[in-house]
Amino acid sequence: MPGERLVVIGGVAAGMSAASRARRLSPQMEVVVLEKGDHVSYGACGLTFLVSGLVPRPEDLIVFTPERLRAERGLDVRTRHEAVEIVTAQKIVRVRRGSELFPLKYDKLVITTGGAPAQSIPGADRPGVFTCNNLASALELRRFLDEQRPRRGVVIGSGYIGLEAAEALRRRQLDVTVLERSENLLEDMEPEIVEQVAERLAAHGVRIQLKAAVNSIESAPDGSLSVVHNSRSVLPADVIVVATGLVPQAELAAQAGVLLGTSGAIRTDDRQQTNVPSIYAAGDCVETLQLVSNAPTYMPLGTTANKQGRVAGENAAGGNATFPGIVGTLVTKVFELEVAKTGLSVASARAAGFSVEAITVNSFSQAKYLQGKPLCAKLVADRSSGRLLGAQLAGEEGAARRVDVVATALTARMTLAEFVHLDLGYAPPFGPVYDPLLIAAWELLKKLGRRR
Amino acid sequence: MPGERLVVIGGVAAGMSAASRARRLSPQMEVVVLEKGDHVSYGACGLTFLVSGLVPRPEDLIVFTPERLRAERGLDVRTRHEAVEIVTAQKIVRVRRGSELFPLKYDKLVITTGGAPAQSIPGADRPGVFTCNNLASALELRRFLDEQRPRRGVVIGSGYIGLEAAEALRRRQLDVTVLERSENLLEDMEPEIVEQVAERLAAHGVRIQLKAAVNSIESAPDGSLSVVHNSRSVLPADVIVVATGLVPQAELAAQAGVLLGTSGAIRTDDRQQTNVPSIYAAGDCVETLQLVSNAPTYMPLGTTANKQGRVAGENAAGGNATFPGIVGTLVTKVFELEVAKTGLSVASARAAGFSVEAITVNSFSQAKYLQGKPLCAKLVADRSSGRLLGAQLAGEEGAARRVDVVATALTARMTLAEFVHLDLGYAPPFGPVYDPLLIAAWELLKKLGRRR
Repeated sequence: MPGERLVVIGGVAAGMSAASRARRLSPQMEVVVLEKGDHVSYGACGLTFLVSGLVPRPEDLIVFTPERLRAERGLDVRTRHEAVEIVTAQKIVRVRRGSELFPLKYDKLVITTGGAPAQSIPGADRPGVFTCNNLASALELRRFLDEQRPRRGVVIGSGYIGLEAAEALRRRQLDVTVLERSENLLEDMEPEIVEQVAERLAAHGVRIQLKAAVNSIESAPDGSLSVVHNSRSVLPADVIVVATGLVPQAELAAQAGVLLGTSGAIRTDDRQQTNVPSIYAAGDCVETLQLVSNAPTYMPLGTTANKQGRVAGENAAGGNATFPGIVGTLVTKVFELEVAKTGLSVASARAAGFSVEAITVNSFSQAKYLQGKPLCAKLVADRSSGRLLGAQLAGEEGAARRVDVVATALTARMTLAEFVHLDLGYAPPFGPVYDPLLIAAWELLKKLGRRR
Repeated sequence: MPGERLVVIGGVAAGMSAASRARRLSPQMEVVVLEKGDHVSYGACGLTFLVSGLVPRPEDLIVFTPERLRAERGLDVRTRHEAVEIVTAQKIVRVRRGSELFPLKYDKLVITTGGAPAQSIPGADRPGVFTCNNLASALELRRFLDEQRPRRGVVIGSGYIGLEAAEALRRRQLDVTVLERSENLLEDMEPEIVEQVAERLAAHGVRIQLKAAVNSIESAPDGSLSVVHNSRSVLPADVIVVATGLVPQAELAAQAGVLLGTSGAIRTDDRQQTNVPSIYAAGDCVETLQLVSNAPTYMPLGTTANKQGRVAGENAAGGNATFPGIVGTLVTKVFELEVAKTGLSVASARAAGFSVEAITVNSFSQAKYLQGKPLCAKLVADRSSGRLLGAQLAGEEGAARRVDVVATALTARMTLAEFVHLDLGYAPPFGPVYDPLLIAAWELLKKLGRRR
């Protein structure tokens, strides 16, 4: 609203989307962005590319500097400003800048405090240990690689960020070992997909150790590191990347009386509003409705953060936008291999109470006579309703392309019987005449028919 | 049904799909396939790749030979057998084999007589003039190119087959001119897309002459050819490909009392059944329900033919399958450029009675910092309902991928307001954080909002 002040806590994806959207809708509103780090408005999903060198300059990832945001958009962006308390009774945020502490009045507040590393590992603060969680840590890692020329890299965690980090280190010629505490790579991915990822990593010389629960990171007097895992195994390393996933950073909100969900993330309605009047939240600190299971879920991703931020900013500026939820689409690349998932896996569909049937089909990304590449597609459906619940794909081409089709079908709550008739484009350079997705849907439909 | 005989007229996409499906469902049914040409069961969509040499051997396009279909599937496949009359009163097909004419009794009949060149050009039967309509003609063209080493190629028609043929000739080092009688390449494609195609063709040295209505093809005593167009212009050529599009070959059906639609193609219900009991039809000889306009349309494509054939075969064998219709998805590649459309163009949406609004967005196929390629996306929507009606895309990567997302959304009858929230996969190698489709939908939604 004109004359009001919007304060946005956090200046990356969700925060900058909120601030920009509010500014655009309400040019008279004062918009202050508080960012505790040095950088705002950057593409966090490209950080591992900065480490590998595929993205040469940090400036390439930075969409706007604070100076440009101020000059071009009239946003009051303050880096190295940390919000340490929200006092709702007085509508102020207590802000720390260096050793100084001062109150900042707000009329509307958008919380985008993001996520923090899921696992706290003793020794993770030693020199030579990094994360890829933000631009500063990625830049430190890159500088360390440039200056110290480490030989042995260890990545702790095998989620998609862990694997991207492993690839980045490998591309920089390090020996790389990935330690994963569970029995499998890529939590919630299907075994058929995980197998292909594991093969691809092995082909590129990345070592994987599963069931490796890390106890601590130690350092020797000469500066060399080691990872202690499973209580007594010791893995030497020259550089370590911790990529154990994210947990929501919601303490600031919780202390102000903002309700959290069972996931520990901030709960909002579909307008990104919290239970506290005038306080909105978006991005990696909130939970989101998973449209397939119709249950709240915590799935921190940049694209969701941007969309939610825009909705939060619009509503904070007096608008009425909604964010309906996600179907859980995730795509990543492991060396040449495209890996993609959307909706529910077999395990998560069972956990959500569905009677699950699934099928895996190995097909090709192009007509075979054009030397199409193998493509593995797994579809998950509900046995009683015939509804499509999810898909996972892996292949050198065509996996990411096809997962979006399933994401769209999931949003529309299509059944397999409807899906199998989809009029997908066909030309020999783009797929076989029966698209792998349609083949899989057809086979799964037959399987359901036999079961019923 | 067991003991019955199914006769399928035509042995390519729709015909072989029908025969194979019927055989699988009803192993005791006798299945006879009549094919007037030499080849059955081949990938007609790959014919231009055979001409260019990208597909080296005709065998690569042939899925099954008649011998294998007989031995492995128990199908009685008869090449060089032409159905010349259907006598419904006696349930027989009169068949010509060479000079012989004989009757063949049927219990169920599936008509897949395909399409024929849309324009009959005087002189199109001269030596050195070819089509890419079937395997035999593509092979003749290839042999001619191999043996005669022609230098100057002319393609008549600039639909996607015409452009594929032009590319094939260009890849074989010919000078190539495309003659198009209308004012634009690629009928029913939007100007923004056509422009990119034209640029790409020019960059590869393909000459285009628009508004060039061909009158005849002449040949000189030395065997060299020339195309007479616009009554007096003469274009010399050593080889000519006629690619003026298809019209349905429905005379055989019509003479038997099968009803045709206004398009001139056979009309069927959603079970692919014609108005005549026991007679089904599928593929390039039938018209199909366009689901966006909810009107019958003639759009002959291989993927539709395969699906319809399967439905026709299933129903002819006593099953109960349906083919709901198409949304009109077409993808092709013009040299490196992916070109894709689905749903209605601006013109076809207007013709269908919609109040049309459209937007064109130029974005990138990958995060810009990974050197993503330009991608042009045009979206068409209905102003009054906000419903998405169609999309066209062009770019070196990501166009074909994204058109399938729109095709799925069209099938689900999504509005722009729903579409804009789609949870499409994001990672820097696959697109910008806001997918070009979502950017376009967002911009179009704003445009609709201002208009209303």
